[in-house]
Parts: sequence; structure tokens; C-alpha cells
Amino acid sequence: MDGPLLVLDRRDGVPLGAQLVDGVRRGILGGLLAPGDAVPSTRALAAELGVSRSSVVAAYEQLAGEGYLELRQGAPTRVARLVVEHEASAPPPDRMPANPSGRAALGEHPVHRIDLLPGSPSTARIDERAWRSAWRQAAAAPIPRLSPPRAGLTGLREEIADHLRRARGVACTSDDVVVTAGTSDAVALLGAALLELGRDRDARHGTASGPPVVAVEHPGYPSARRLLERRGLEIAPLPVDADGLDLAALQRLPRPPQAVMITPSHQYPLGGRLPVASRLELIDWARGAGALIIEDDYDSEFRHLGAPLPALASLDRLGAANPANPDDGPRAAARTVLVGSFSKVLTPWLRIGYLVLPGDPALRAAIDRIRADETCPVPGVAQEAMRAFLASGALRRHIAATRRDYAHRRRMVQDALDGLPGAPLSGLDGGLHAVVGLADAETSARIVARLADDGVAVAPLADYSAVAGVRPGGLVFGYAGVGDALLGEGLARIRAALVETLDLRGDAD
Amino acid sequence: MDGPLLVLDRRDGVPLGAQLVDGVRRGILGGLLAPGDAVPSTRALAAELGVSRSSVVAAYEQLAGEGYLELRQGAPTRVARLVVEHEASAPPPDRMPANPSGRAALGEHPVHRIDLLPGSPSTARIDERAWRSAWRQAAAAPIPRLSPPRAGLTGLREEIADHLRRARGVACTSDDVVVTAGTSDAVALLGAALLELGRDRDARHGTASGPPVVAVEHPGYPSARRLLERRGLEIAPLPVDADGLDLAALQRLPRPPQAVMITPSHQYPLGGRLPVASRLELIDWARGAGALIIEDDYDSEFRHLGAPLPALASLDRLGAANPANPDDGPRAAARTVLVGSFSKVLTPWLRIGYLVLPGDPALRAAIDRIRADETCPVPGVAQEAMRAFLASGALRRHIAATRRDYAHRRRMVQDALDGLPGAPLSGLDGGLHAVVGLADAETSARIVARLADDGVAVAPLADYSAVAGVRPGGLVFGYAGVGDALLGEGLARIRAALVETLDLRGDAD
Repeated sequence: MDGPLLVLDRRDGVPLGAQLVDGVRRGILGGLLAPGDAVPSTRALAAELGVSRSSVVAAYEQLAGEGYLELRQGAPTRVARLVVEHEASAPPPDRMPANPSGRAALGEHPVHRIDLLPGSPSTARIDERAWRSAWRQAAAAPIPRLSPPRAGLTGLREEIADHLRRARGVACTSDDVVVTAGTSDAVALLGAALLELGRDRDARHGTASGPPVVAVEHPGYPSARRLLERRGLEIAPLPVDADGLDLAALQRLPRPPQAVMITPSHQYPLGGRLPVASRLELIDWARGAGALIIEDDYDSEFRHLGAPLPALASLDRLGAANPANPDDGPRAAARTVLVGSFSKVLTPWLRIGYLVLPGDPALRAAIDRIRADETCPVPGVAQEAMRAFLASGALRRHIAATRRDYAHRRRMVQDALDGLPGAPLSGLDGGLHAVVGLADAETSARIVARLADDGVAVAPLADYSAVAGVRPGGLVFGYAGVGDALLGEGLARIRAALVETLDLRGDAD
Repeated sequence: MDGPLLVLDRRDGVPLGAQLVDGVRRGILGGLLAPGDAVPSTRALAAELGVSRSSVVAAYEQLAGEGYLELRQGAPTRVARLVVEHEASAPPPDRMPANPSGRAALGEHPVHRIDLLPGSPSTARIDERAWRSAWRQAAAAPIPRLSPPRAGLTGLREEIADHLRRARGVACTSDDVVVTAGTSDAVALLGAALLELGRDRDARHGTASGPPVVAVEHPGYPSARRLLERRGLEIAPLPVDADGLDLAALQRLPRPPQAVMITPSHQYPLGGRLPVASRLELIDWARGAGALIIEDDYDSEFRHLGAPLPALASLDRLGAANPANPDDGPRAAARTVLVGSFSKVLTPWLRIGYLVLPGDPALRAAIDRIRADETCPVPGVAQEAMRAFLASGALRRHIAATRRDYAHRRRMVQDALDGLPGAPLSGLDGGLHAVVGLADAETSARIVARLADDGVAVAPLADYSAVAGVRPGGLVFGYAGVGDALLGEGLARIRAALVETLDLRGDAD
């Protein structure tokens, strides 16, 4: 390297460590440092810049975590073979991105060089030794000749209950947990149970009340909605605003819903968080109506702004009656089912999720009957491996490390896209995706198409509409699934597409 | 040991090897040899009996495979800690037996010392080294950040197609295969596709034709039937006889079915095999009606009597038109979907199954749409492990070895139960379960209850009824899931229960 790699500004309010990280990162992205180049030793750089060696070590470690540097025991630290080169290759045909519109047929996806479709986490920091060891341990156990137990392996259910007590404040035990093949299977199981409970009620009362109604957020998670419709449930859309679900709309529905499916911690996709007062109101309504609240807690482990709120299920369970305890009679029973998975905190490759059930004996009996016929779909070995991985503490460490990465990526998103007139950035208080508001669906579709031509995949907000014919304008994209370098490139292209399509050149450049 | 272990009869028509195996087995079961006892070395026994040493080695290996002997490199061969002791302990709470009636709640199963409920294979001979190596290999791969591809991993689909070409004569490729979480998920996916196709048709023609009808066997597989009903499909029962499905009844149904679900290779549970003429007739009907044949090929790898027939799907594909080829226009397209799993040939613990689809583009598009929303539920690591296990040849070897074990167990069943008046034994031409016919459901229920008191779990045939109020008499039990010693004990108790309940003492003893 010729000349100084970076100069620190001691008057700047930015901490020296952050300046160090930022300087090296810019050196790499700007081409000053090429892949494979050795960077100065921590001792040499510390001396040159007049900072402590531990600051440089910390900065290099962060950069290695972000994929910029390669640390090797006993060898000089080098600039990584760039994440760009590595990730820019077409995904293997086996790894087609999930598509919220669900329209393209298998094998017909355009291959995007920079896949920013929401839903992909970063897997770069998974402790591979703990991962391999968990699977090895699971595969070494004797091979049973039966299906996995209906509710899932007790050991895994205990670890999940433990995880939720710590991470989400939900006072639950393994008895409340049902292991599922991800969120889809969890929602499908609840849908089947609602249908069964509806038929039972009709049979008891000699009525024909029609299919159960599930109120869903609009815009909201499209595949869960279609999954329920496909199974014959009726969907009632409820509008969301900056605070999440509009509860007043719940009272105006033509048929009272048997369930409300909601993302209270971080509305999907718009990002609002349901305030505590609304949570209490929703719980009151559900207890009064005997309806279920289906809480989809899909990315709440990652909260970037504001104190995290415990799960709605946690609030609901506080002071709720236990139906198994006759002394609890006069108090109302909890009505919230928590739906979660390891897709966002680890990888959707795993297909492992869970339900946390309230005490409701009829709901539990229906789910037990369904699983008795259809069996728990999660392979026993995968359940045992997940149990071992959780027990090792590797997930807790992974979430902590990844949370820092996502906070950094989130800043990259803000740096690139905040403040564009007519394109407000939102949804960034938590999670791993963001939303760019746009005036109409047509402009959005043009921008999505232009980005696709540019090799960048993002989703139009219109794909999340729960009302036929209503197509809100906006873009939804994830910032976790690709490395920093690719994300930076993708964000630059999104900005360019917005600036050109919205004709903001004068305003924004 | 005092005195000769056994004496071979050279005039007897039974081969000396079989006499050898039989003699040692009787010695162990009769208590002549105790668990832990060393048996004579192969050299010593060969010399004593005047047979070749390789005959003794082969006999010891077979007995070790059956669980009677323990072979250890460099140590004397010993009588195994008896399978009875090992298996008689209560199953861990995680491993409750599948229950065809689906009535008891989780945790309420009586614990049976000898679990002969149908559906459990033997896992004793699984090549554990190949198993562990497959999972290790799968866990060592980089961890993707996406869901598994909709139809499953291409590599696994190729191995499944290869397996079916060899084992079932089905000329298919990986493009025809969809990976599922066992048979339940496969049937559920087909049910969802039938509902979707029905709605599409109604929308096109402006009609409201009601839920699709699926014709099922009566008696037949109860949980698949309930699964379809639970999803809103209409079930039409068709009687079965000794040859399997009664096709004439198909014409008499009040509403024409969109699909027929059938077990042509080995009717579940009665055991009949659909003759080729009926297969052709069924295919003709399906082509004419545009209906699907859902072939549940659940245990056809194990055929004990008569030449195995290729899958019905294989016959259907012969000479069928390929919808992708416009020149094939005038010929009819295949209508059979093959449903299979690794639950019987390996273990239901795996939860891996598959569909083999005919060319039908509308069906394929519907399944693709559903999987796009709901994702493939099988963990990527489990798919990769199964691919590696298949590629290693371990499944092929396992099936060959297990087939011999089951043939032996089947003879044990015949020896114990054949020829009891009023209790005809059937269903034994293939697979891993048997049926005892009984005059009525009340007698059957009495015998099932008595056996439960005796610690033996079997299923009443009435649980398989597809017609409300019709309860055929009979018992269904599996002979694969427990070791020889436990099976022998269970069969003796079944025989005793039959003899006493039917008052056959004079006839049968």
C-alpha cells in the first residue's frame, strides 16, 4: 500500500473505532485495497494512527464479520475475496428465491444478481461448528421406527419454551409448544383447527354458520392469507396504519371473525408496532368474542429502535385464567396463539417453527386430533439437531452478533435512501426489511421492472394487498440476505431508479 | 452348554442352513441358551455337525440380523441380551405409537409392552455408518439463506426418480418428482390442488359444482381420508374385495369423483392386489373422466408372494401422451399420481415422501402455486442427507436385507395364526402387516381390549371403515416393528385371545 490507508479525525463526534472500520471499508469498496491484499498488522496500524491496539483488533474483527477481511491464525489479515464476486454468481437452480406473488412457475424466475426480496436472513455468522455438531449428535442417536411425537420432541419443545421465555417474555412451558414445519405449517394447522372447531359448533347447535372468518392485515403477509383461503376459510382484510392494525375496523366487519392474524411487533410489511393500549383492547375483544389472536412474531428478535415490547401473547397470559384450574373460573382465559419460526433468526432452509398455544382445551384437542392423523411433519433428526443447537447457546450468540450486523445494514439503507421526496423510507425500527412509499402501484411496478433489468430483485408493495383491486404503491426489500458490498450496490441502484423514475435529479443529487 | 445344541436331520427336506438357524433360535427362545452365553465358535460347531464352516457363519449372521446373537470382531459370539428385555421397557414419552383411530389425546395412550400397531418398519438393519455419514455430509454444506426449492432439492429428486425406475418400474425423471413431508403432506398437497382446480373450473364455467369428490377404498387408510375431509373435499367410499377396489362401484357413485385414491399393490389394510385388467380399466376410466388416480404405493417394495407388479403409474405412463409434445395430441395423457415415502422402507421418523406427477400442466401449475406460497416443508439438510443416503446405495441394501427379515416374520405369523376356524388370516402376500378376519366388530373390540390388557397393541379393522356406522370385524397388526422374540410372544397372545374368545379350544389346540 502506498500512502496512508486512512486518517482519523479526532475532532469529529464519531468514535475512533467507528472511523477506523469505516475507513477500511471505504478503502476496500473504493478499490484502494484489492481482494487478497494484506492489511497492516494491528500493531503497525495502531502505532501509525496513535490508537490502542485493541481498537484496531476490534475494528478488524468487525470487518471480518461483515465479510471484508479474512482473519487467519498465524497469517497476515487480508482483504477478502470480495463478497461481490462470491455472491454475484447466479444462485444454483435449487435455490430460487421465495416469491411473494407466487406467480412464476418453478424454473421461470429471472436470476437476479442482487436478491433483495424480503425474507432472507444473513447466515454468514452461524457458528458452523455448533451447527455441524448438533446434526452429528442427532444422527448418532438410535433410529426410531415411529413417527415423531404429535407435538414434536419434548426436548426441543423445552428449548423453544426456554428461548421464548428469555427472548420474548412469554411465560410458557413445553406443554404449550407444538413444533411445526415453519410458519406455513403453523398457520395451516391453525386454519384446519378453526375449520374443525367451526364444524363442531355447527353440529352442536344444529346451525350452518359457513366458513370461519380470519381477519388479516392489509397490506399483509400474502402467502399466509392465500394459504387460509385455499383451505376454505374466509378472509376479512383490516387496514393498518403507522401503529399497525386499525382496531376500529374490527368492529365494522360484516361477519364476526373467529381469529385475527396480526404482526404486532413489526407489522409485515409496513413496520408499525401495535401500542400497548391497542394490544389490551385487542385482547379484551378476543376474550369477549371467544376469538383467537394469531400473533405472527416473525422478526421481533431484531429491534433496532425503541425498547422491545414483549410478545402480545405474553401480555395476554398475564393474569389470564388457566382453564385446567377450576378456581380460575371467573377470570377470562388467554386467547393468543404465538406463531414463530427459526427462519429469520437462523435460516428458512431449516423449515422449523412452532406454535405456543393458550390453555383453550377445545383448540388443543383439535390440534391434537389433526396431528394424530397427519403426524408432526418435522423429521425427528432435524428436531433433535435443533434441540442440540439451542441447548449449545449457539442461537443466542448468533442473534446477538447478527443484530449488530443488521443495525449496520439498516444504517446503510438510511444513508442511501432517506430523504428522497415522494419516496419515504419506513419500516426500519426492527427486523430485516424496509419499505419505500410511492404514490401509486404503476410507478412502483415500473421501478421494480427497471431494477429487475438492473439485476436487483425487490417486491412491489401491491403484492401484499389483501383487498382485490386495491394496489398500494411502494417497494419492499430485505437488507439482511446479501453481504455489505452487494447491499451497497443494490441500494445505489434502487436510489438511481427512484431518482430517475420520480425525476428527482434536481432534488436529490 | 451341556449336550448337543442341536441335531440336524439330513433326511428332512429342509436345507441344513435353515435347520441350523432354526435350532439355535429355538434354543434361545426355549431358554436353553441364556442372554450373554457364548455359543460355540463357527469352526467348532461346523466340525461337530459335519457341515461347512461357511454354513455356520451364514447362520450366525442371519441370527445376529434377527437380534438373537451378538457378533463382535475378535470376541466370542454370544446370545444377545434378549430383545424382549430390551424392547419390553415402556417407550419413552416422546415415542407414542401412531394411532389409526386418532382418538386418544397425547399422553393418554396406554403403554403397550408389545406394540403391533401397523405402520412401524424394522430399523434394526439400517446401515448406521451410511446414515451418520449422510447427515454429516449434509450438515457440512454451506448454510443457504433461502427456503428449500418448491419441488425439493434437484439432487434428491434425481435419486428418488432413479429409485422408482429401478424398484417400481416407473419411467420418470426428477422433473416429475415433488418432495413432501411424508405421505400426509403429499395427500394434503393433492387435496389442496384438487380444491384449487375445482374453483378454477367453476370460475371459468360460471358454475358452483361443490367440493371435489375423492373416491377412497372401504375399508381403507383412515388418516388420509380424514385429512381430505378436514380440507373440505367430499369422500365417496368404494368397497374392496380380495382383488382390491371394486371398479363397478365407481360407476354407481352419485357424483363423479375428481380423483380415486387407491392402494393397488397391496390394499391397505385387507391386502388384495388389483389385477392388471382392472388396472387398465381404471386408467381408461380416469382418462375418459379427466380424473386423477392417486396411487398410494406405501409398502410395495416388500412383496412376499407372487411376482411383483410394477406401479399402476408405470402402466399408465406406457404409451400415454406427453402434454408438452404437440405431436402427441390424439393420445390420452397419463392420469396417475404416485404417492410414496421412506416411512416403510426406512423409518417414519424421517418424514420424507414424494409425489410423481403425470404431465397434466394444470395440476403441475396448481401444485407449484401452492408450494410457492407454502414452501417445501422438508428441511434442506434432511433432503441433502436423504440424497446422500440414497446415492450411497444404503437404501437398496437395506430393502434387500429387510425383505428377508420380513419374509421370516411373515412365516412366524402364519405358523402362529393360520388355520384358526372363524379367524382367517389374510393380507400376507406383501408388506409388513396382516389381517385376521372376524365375524363382527363387537367380538373384534373384545379381543383388542383383551390384548391391550395383555400388553399387546393391535388395531380393530373397524377403525379403517370409510362408511359411518359400518364396522367390519377383524384385527390388523404389524409384524415388522418389533424383534422376533417380542413378535413371537405377541403372536402367542393373539392366538390365545382368539382361541379363548372364539371358544376354539377344541378345534385349535
